[in-house]
Amino acid sequence: MASSLGRLCGCRFWRTAPEHGSRRLQAGPPSPTVGRFCRARFLGAGSGPTRGLGYDRSPGGAGLGGGARRAPWLVAGLAAGLAGLAAASLPPLARAEMVPRSEGATGAQERADELALRCSSFMAPPVTAVSEMRARRGDMKTQMELLIMETQAQVCQALAQLDRGASFSVDRWERKEGGGGISCVLQDGQVFEKAGVSVSVVHGTLSEEAAKQMKSRGKVLKTINGQLPFCAMGVSSVIHPKNPHAPTFHFNYRYFEIEEADGNKQWWFGGGCDLTPTYLNQEDAVHFHKTLKEACDQHDPSFYPKFKKWCDDYFVIKHRGERRGIGGIFFDDLDSPSKEDVFHFVQSCAHAVVPSYIPLVKKHCNDPFTSQEKQWQQLRRGRYVEFNLLYDRGTKFGLFTPGSRIESILMSLPLTARWEYMHVPSKNSKEAEILEVLHHPKDWVH
Amino acid sequence: MASSLGRLCGCRFWRTAPEHGSRRLQAGPPSPTVGRFCRARFLGAGSGPTRGLGYDRSPGGAGLGGGARRAPWLVAGLAAGLAGLAAASLPPLARAEMVPRSEGATGAQERADELALRCSSFMAPPVTAVSEMRARRGDMKTQMELLIMETQAQVCQALAQLDRGASFSVDRWERKEGGGGISCVLQDGQVFEKAGVSVSVVHGTLSEEAAKQMKSRGKVLKTINGQLPFCAMGVSSVIHPKNPHAPTFHFNYRYFEIEEADGNKQWWFGGGCDLTPTYLNQEDAVHFHKTLKEACDQHDPSFYPKFKKWCDDYFVIKHRGERRGIGGIFFDDLDSPSKEDVFHFVQSCAHAVVPSYIPLVKKHCNDPFTSQEKQWQQLRRGRYVEFNLLYDRGTKFGLFTPGSRIESILMSLPLTARWEYMHVPSKNSKEAEILEVLHHPKDWVH
Repeated sequence: MASSLGRLCGCRFWRTAPEHGSRRLQAGPPSPTVGRFCRARFLGAGSGPTRGLGYDRSPGGAGLGGGARRAPWLVAGLAAGLAGLAAASLPPLARAEMVPRSEGATGAQERADELALRCSSFMAPPVTAVSEMRARRGDMKTQMELLIMETQAQVCQALAQLDRGASFSVDRWERKEGGGGISCVLQDGQVFEKAGVSVSVVHGTLSEEAAKQMKSRGKVLKTINGQLPFCAMGVSSVIHPKNPHAPTFHFNYRYFEIEEADGNKQWWFGGGCDLTPTYLNQEDAVHFHKTLKEACDQHDPSFYPKFKKWCDDYFVIKHRGERRGIGGIFFDDLDSPSKEDVFHFVQSCAHAVVPSYIPLVKKHCNDPFTSQEKQWQQLRRGRYVEFNLLYDRGTKFGLFTPGSRIESILMSLPLTARWEYMHVPSKNSKEAEILEVLHHPKDWVH
Repeated sequence: MASSLGRLCGCRFWRTAPEHGSRRLQAGPPSPTVGRFCRARFLGAGSGPTRGLGYDRSPGGAGLGGGARRAPWLVAGLAAGLAGLAAASLPPLARAEMVPRSEGATGAQERADELALRCSSFMAPPVTAVSEMRARRGDMKTQMELLIMETQAQVCQALAQLDRGASFSVDRWERKEGGGGISCVLQDGQVFEKAGVSVSVVHGTLSEEAAKQMKSRGKVLKTINGQLPFCAMGVSSVIHPKNPHAPTFHFNYRYFEIEEADGNKQWWFGGGCDLTPTYLNQEDAVHFHKTLKEACDQHDPSFYPKFKKWCDDYFVIKHRGERRGIGGIFFDDLDSPSKEDVFHFVQSCAHAVVPSYIPLVKKHCNDPFTSQEKQWQQLRRGRYVEFNLLYDRGTKFGLFTPGSRIESILMSLPLTARWEYMHVPSKNSKEAEILEVLHHPKDWVH
């Protein structure tokens, strides 16, 4: 039986759902398996009086859990939290500026309120205790955690607004080896077959096998007995709409810090996003790539062509000799000119997620389609599974990292997929048209 | 458009089907991709006047192709071929004994007829030219090719008899690097969702990556610049019935010969079979394991327990901590006491395929089932895909071997599969019952 742990505006957020393998929040030490774990349901925009995002920070919310215990401001900051809820659809800076400034407040208090307000719009309390983030406000780990939490909230809100009435499960989990994450999944909705947006912030030491999976080209790391202290965080998402004319979408932005045997700290950013349409729509492809190019061009005119090519080269189903989709951008090991510069580029990319993709789903989610078109979509879903399980470095890294949350890694797999023996579309069909592009990537913006 | 290349008893067998990417047989050199290729349709037992197996060896069959060209006995041996067709359901020895012996025939001719008759019941001409097999009759490569071709025919016949009216496609393909295969697939039938039985007989040199995939525990091979001349042959099959109460089944028996840098020839057999039920049926599990045990016990009482454990240890979905199914037998690197001894053991295993599995499908293919049961089957299909793409050595070996026929390797994937986020069956359910066995393998025969 699920039991409600709190309510806000008549809409229940935090629930335990033991029938799904989740647990009540515990005050004690983490369990030997996944540690503390909490599940909530976020309901689509049309399903209740609450239209914003945010987690239950009600002072009366019994058993509010780890985040609330670690963050006493959550109780005091209810008013600010509500303001944050209303502003959840605004970009982060606009939202931060909405903090009511009390005349007698000190600068430090103001900044504290600003942080609390930012966090209040997230899908769940951040993985790192807010007090800890406050203490190292300028640190890149803090900046990046705030960015990925914010991106998760923005994308989930956009999905929920499109798929009115769909149920969004929010699972907050901890990794016994260090860190944890928040996985938000909308499944079998009206618009989306499956849409997952997951944040993870993990740290500890990497095994040699996991280090091998995470090392990108040319990144040689000095280990002590094959072990490396590390911190890795990122937001990752795969969105599979139901309508075969609405494309599948993936994005992931991540940050790594690794301490080598000689004490040297290496850091780098990675990420990207790519589109996987079942059928080719030129206009959609141009919109998608142009939005990404604009985000890239703000930082370096060489980024888009370089990262577009990297994307085309990475998302290849080698044994089929075809790409997974029509590409986007992809980069890894980005560690120059400075942490701040790369962070701002990643921030621009993260802000481009919603405008690059959501309009395409809006445009096509009610398109009429035939059973043959649905079947072709299912076959392409099969190819998606092949890429993710056989080639995707992120998936392999996750599966081989001890203590990883398998459900969060494999939420990228579609709800359903199909494999037909020897299926080859007939010449000049719409199915052959998209295959042609998957075999020969195109330039969409020139 | 498909065009018939020959007929037998009113039932068309050999067809080219260019819309499926296949080609007409060509007399010239192999093409740069898959080389010569032919597709046939074998119709289920209830669909036409022909009830036996066999390929079109009619003297009037225009463009009969490689097998016929290489084997002139096919034209002369029509009468014997027809006898072979009628006897296709008998075990191989019984079938061989049915060859009509002409009084004036020499011993050599008799043996030639015997070989022709054996081959006549196969799904397609063997990969190796019959004249070549005749010339090295006692060689293990010949014995094994005959066994795997025979096993393919027996299993296909049993499947076609069960799934009356289903269409069975038979693709004969060549590998430009050397060798080829025959893939038989029944898809979306009444009884079977997808059933593939594939034979391959390939030779050439192995790349270092492929050699790494094929090396089993402790098998160290001396290469020249990472290359190894090799010959590998096997029969492999995965059968997914539609009814969730009828289990999925896999078997594979294979033989390798490798020539090392110092000229030393290594050989070994591998194989096994395992059952993957959606729901546990104790009686089925006992029948399956007992049949395998009987086959093993004819050769060595230690085989069944040893190979049963090996199977339980091999078919593990590591990231889930569960087995793929309820096991069976699995072995690799079997190279003692002698080629002949191991071959006879493998032969017993191959003969146990039909009696171990087919009765279970017969028993359950008309069982009533609910949509919830069908959905659980689809989720288990998802797990099957995870194992095959992430862990199965055979699949990886195939995908990383240049010139492999991808469709034949991935025919093991189910027609449809499903992934639900955080699906955990309720306690004491039938779904939880099978999961328990997947977590803790049982002894089924004591």
